[in-house]
Amino acid sequence: MHIDIISVLPELLTSPFEHSIMKRAQDKGLLTVAVHHLRKWAVNEYGQVDDYQYGGGAGMVMMCEPLVNAITELSASRKFDEIIYVTPDGKTLNQRMTNALSLKENLLIICGHYKGIDERIRQKYVTLELSIGDYVLSGGELAAAVLVDAIGRLLPGVLNDETSALTDSFQDNLLAPPVYTRPVDFEGMQVPDVLMSGNHAKIEEWRYEKALQRTKDRRPDLLAD
Amino acid sequence: MHIDIISVLPELLTSPFEHSIMKRAQDKGLLTVAVHHLRKWAVNEYGQVDDYQYGGGAGMVMMCEPLVNAITELSASRKFDEIIYVTPDGKTLNQRMTNALSLKENLLIICGHYKGIDERIRQKYVTLELSIGDYVLSGGELAAAVLVDAIGRLLPGVLNDETSALTDSFQDNLLAPPVYTRPVDFEGMQVPDVLMSGNHAKIEEWRYEKALQRTKDRRPDLLAD
Repeated sequence: MHIDIISVLPELLTSPFEHSIMKRAQDKGLLTVAVHHLRKWAVNEYGQVDDYQYGGGAGMVMMCEPLVNAITELSASRKFDEIIYVTPDGKTLNQRMTNALSLKENLLIICGHYKGIDERIRQKYVTLELSIGDYVLSGGELAAAVLVDAIGRLLPGVLNDETSALTDSFQDNLLAPPVYTRPVDFEGMQVPDVLMSGNHAKIEEWRYEKALQRTKDRRPDLLAD
Repeated sequence: MHIDIISVLPELLTSPFEHSIMKRAQDKGLLTVAVHHLRKWAVNEYGQVDDYQYGGGAGMVMMCEPLVNAITELSASRKFDEIIYVTPDGKTLNQRMTNALSLKENLLIICGHYKGIDERIRQKYVTLELSIGDYVLSGGELAAAVLVDAIGRLLPGVLNDETSALTDSFQDNLLAPPVYTRPVDFEGMQVPDVLMSGNHAKIEEWRYEKALQRTKDRRPDLLAD
């Protein structure tokens, strides 16, 4: 999979893609991520990529021309399955959408900044608007990092043990069950006996029940899906 | 505000806190963020902080002792308003919770990794479990970065123009209205006349109507809140 990211703050994304799973995915050749500075496609020698919003008010708007020139140039080298704009008013990302996106070949992610991008780019060029949650960030960069991480870890071969992703929260619409490691007694709190029983069928049953109970208690909405 | 973060991958968080709003908040002395490597509180000379999970299965679990030692040491220098664990099965973060957290003095954020942290730390030490959305990441670091950014930008004086945050999506339970900048005509698509009318009352009315319409179309659930 290849992911291009367009940003006015590419340096913010340096460390998230140089470590952990994202590094492993790239080292193994399973994922390539290229972060492009929008300023490369600025409208003038001052590197301008944003301007005041029509109608007045606080906050700059990212201009059409730099974005369309970036999209056009990047689209010349590959066919994007989706041109994604990360924005608080997009569709709320969930694990099902993440699974679906992990099957794509080429993604382009546009990070907004300031008040966001000109509406006309959204109407004509963007194919998918995604929100990582109901809160506002200072820019789309962290949202893009979250999206790439959530997708990247699902690519076959990225995680050491593929069952590790299959038992995560949200696969099966269930939250994950509690986990314990040594010591058996920690400040008077014990590891549940069943987990030390060696009886795998019983352990699976306990985990399923705990996952179901936790989901009922915390996120009954997931069970209604 | 001061935020301590405990992580097994502190280097992943370098660039997000060195740029943009987070840098500005720290430069202005409005926010201090300290990222601590959990390995500092490892249980042995090999730097061990995780172990196999009881009951078997893929994925390591972060051990109790290093975490409790980290929490104890950090709590000696300040009283934390919340000890937050970022986890997919926590309460789903939204703007209202972000607003409330921005009023606190001291926060401690624990980033999980692998299969997460031992359940007993969650039961006894963690005061707030937060999820940034219904998807799984390779670790809690990006979730912590998102949380700090969402909170940090709300601290008075961080954004250049405080009205900029007040007109964001989710304040008032409404998505933001569309924004436009120059040129007036882009590939045959025009900026709405009203935005160039100079009539501020009409512009505000248009923006409110567009925000309401967009919320009805995309996120009717927000209006039911």
